[in-house]
Amino acid sequence: MPEQLKNNRLIKALLREPVDMTPVWIMRQAGRYLPEYRETRKKAGDFVTLCQTPELACEVTMQPLHRYPLDAAIIFSDILTIPDAMGLGLKLVESVGPRFERSITNSNDIKNLPLPDPEQELKYVMDSIRLVRRELNGDVPLIGFSGSPWTLATYMIEGGSSREFSKVKGMLEAEPASLHLLLKHLSDSITLYLKAQINAGAQAIMIFDTWGGILKTPNYMNFSLYYMKIICEHLKNEHSEVKVPVILFTKGADKWIEKIVEADCDAISIDWNSNIGQVRERIGKRVAIQGNMEPRILKESEKKIVDEVESILRSYGSGSGHVFNLGHGITPDIEPDKVGILVDAVHNLSRQYHKTK
Amino acid sequence: MPEQLKNNRLIKALLREPVDMTPVWIMRQAGRYLPEYRETRKKAGDFVTLCQTPELACEVTMQPLHRYPLDAAIIFSDILTIPDAMGLGLKLVESVGPRFERSITNSNDIKNLPLPDPEQELKYVMDSIRLVRRELNGDVPLIGFSGSPWTLATYMIEGGSSREFSKVKGMLEAEPASLHLLLKHLSDSITLYLKAQINAGAQAIMIFDTWGGILKTPNYMNFSLYYMKIICEHLKNEHSEVKVPVILFTKGADKWIEKIVEADCDAISIDWNSNIGQVRERIGKRVAIQGNMEPRILKESEKKIVDEVESILRSYGSGSGHVFNLGHGITPDIEPDKVGILVDAVHNLSRQYHKTK
Repeated sequence: MPEQLKNNRLIKALLREPVDMTPVWIMRQAGRYLPEYRETRKKAGDFVTLCQTPELACEVTMQPLHRYPLDAAIIFSDILTIPDAMGLGLKLVESVGPRFERSITNSNDIKNLPLPDPEQELKYVMDSIRLVRRELNGDVPLIGFSGSPWTLATYMIEGGSSREFSKVKGMLEAEPASLHLLLKHLSDSITLYLKAQINAGAQAIMIFDTWGGILKTPNYMNFSLYYMKIICEHLKNEHSEVKVPVILFTKGADKWIEKIVEADCDAISIDWNSNIGQVRERIGKRVAIQGNMEPRILKESEKKIVDEVESILRSYGSGSGHVFNLGHGITPDIEPDKVGILVDAVHNLSRQYHKTK
Repeated sequence: MPEQLKNNRLIKALLREPVDMTPVWIMRQAGRYLPEYRETRKKAGDFVTLCQTPELACEVTMQPLHRYPLDAAIIFSDILTIPDAMGLGLKLVESVGPRFERSITNSNDIKNLPLPDPEQELKYVMDSIRLVRRELNGDVPLIGFSGSPWTLATYMIEGGSSREFSKVKGMLEAEPASLHLLLKHLSDSITLYLKAQINAGAQAIMIFDTWGGILKTPNYMNFSLYYMKIICEHLKNEHSEVKVPVILFTKGADKWIEKIVEADCDAISIDWNSNIGQVRERIGKRVAIQGNMEPRILKESEKKIVDEVESILRSYGSGSGHVFNLGHGITPDIEPDKVGILVDAVHNLSRQYHKTK
């Protein structure tokens, strides 16, 4: 682990240490916008098989790295691996989204949920990480990740994607204690899972709270942020020799950012509804900031993309602590060349903000 | 692991397979009644250090094996290792019993409890098991163990030993959901812990529910047995090549025995308030039975001890499925010679009940 990374910009920026240029990676960079990804997915047959076959997961993880000078790899996986390993039976239904064969309806379902052993039921993720680390050969760091407890709970209770979140909101109102039982169990499981990812070779960790933003403020604090904080605390001491930074991302959380940075995280990821310069002012020097270009900008012309990159870099301003990214995952309808334009623009235009006086 | 045990009577009896004589071991067989134990404990300084130093824990585990032809070793440890690893700070106060520096008073305490990694915070137990397995060299099987979720919860909420259990009973009445949160978290932790013990070399597992008997029947079912069942289910698939039998022991549970055997356990341990022959009739052939001599009998004459052994063997009757033991731990006031008398009596007098026709 204490091997030297050839490109260590990401880790340095996450720890707010000086860098030569702003590092950049893209959420869902190994994804359907790449023809080679679609090829591998076809070979795998379905999405779940692609996730669960370490050789194929490694292959798609590496694909964007071969195309662009990205500053990080992120392990190709899904946020729903844990509920699947708890026996809910994950399926990705084309043009519907993820579905579980079984969902959680009451406290007995929750009490009976097993705690997956990351090196047994989730060994395929650890094997993928080990494989990618070997492939990367120290070029750039590898990011591991998990969904947040709240976000996983929403899928487990709704049985898949949802628009209304009526079931999970119903449980929150009618049986908050049962929901806490599930969230605590998920926190335990996610902590184990992320520790195992770190042991397998993940060099930074991101927690995706995709659905925290649907909650009212006090509920967000109690049912989502609370458990992410606990996970951060438990991860803090996991890495002995090399620090493994933790990035928290709640989509739609602009109004809660001051609260989020109070968790023991090293960075927050923000969506495009925040102004990154203002966020930087609001939170001071406590954590690094990742983000925050609107994914739709990648549909625009080269000039518009470069302008937007410049605007975000300028808004953040001088000094380290910024990791460039989109405010959410890249969509399948983006031309791959646009990503190259973005990555180059970040690197070239950011040098001026990292000059030592 | 698939190494041949020189004396495999215990495992066979737990699985109700034929044996030549009834196997026998004694709860707390590595304990204060042995002068060599008191010597090692003095060397260690205090009880917690003795538990947490694998060389010393191994030494005392082996001591009774050197004296008596016992059919099993049980790892020397404490049922409170898990709460200690969760940060509660275990101390054994002379003539008072175990005390925690911190206790659990509300649901926030519970939500913040970490999930100990058995190979980190509890590595000393695993190291002790590995050391003992090496020392035993296949002579007899090694039993691993844990307290039950309910029993650990009582200590964590009371802050140590208790006579009245007023705090834990108060939480059960006023905040049952918080108690379930703790019990689920403990079930997760115990499952991990026991799986790790099996991986480290434990060849049978016993779960001690010392305080289940203080509950009313419906509360015993919901707050104690329910979680032991879940642990048994999750352990069932842990052993691939060699079956690792699981023994459940709730003290004072005579009236619930039919319910206990419905858990996925291989054996139940019973105290001296049950009649072993009647228990055998009540439960049929579902599980093996361990027990059930009253520890106080070891204060009596050699003849009384032998008579009692004979009476219990006769009560159980012919055929396998009986593991001789006391109904609770041996007390410090017993003369070591009496244990030798007991062990020999079990072996000699039981042969007639295992003759093949």
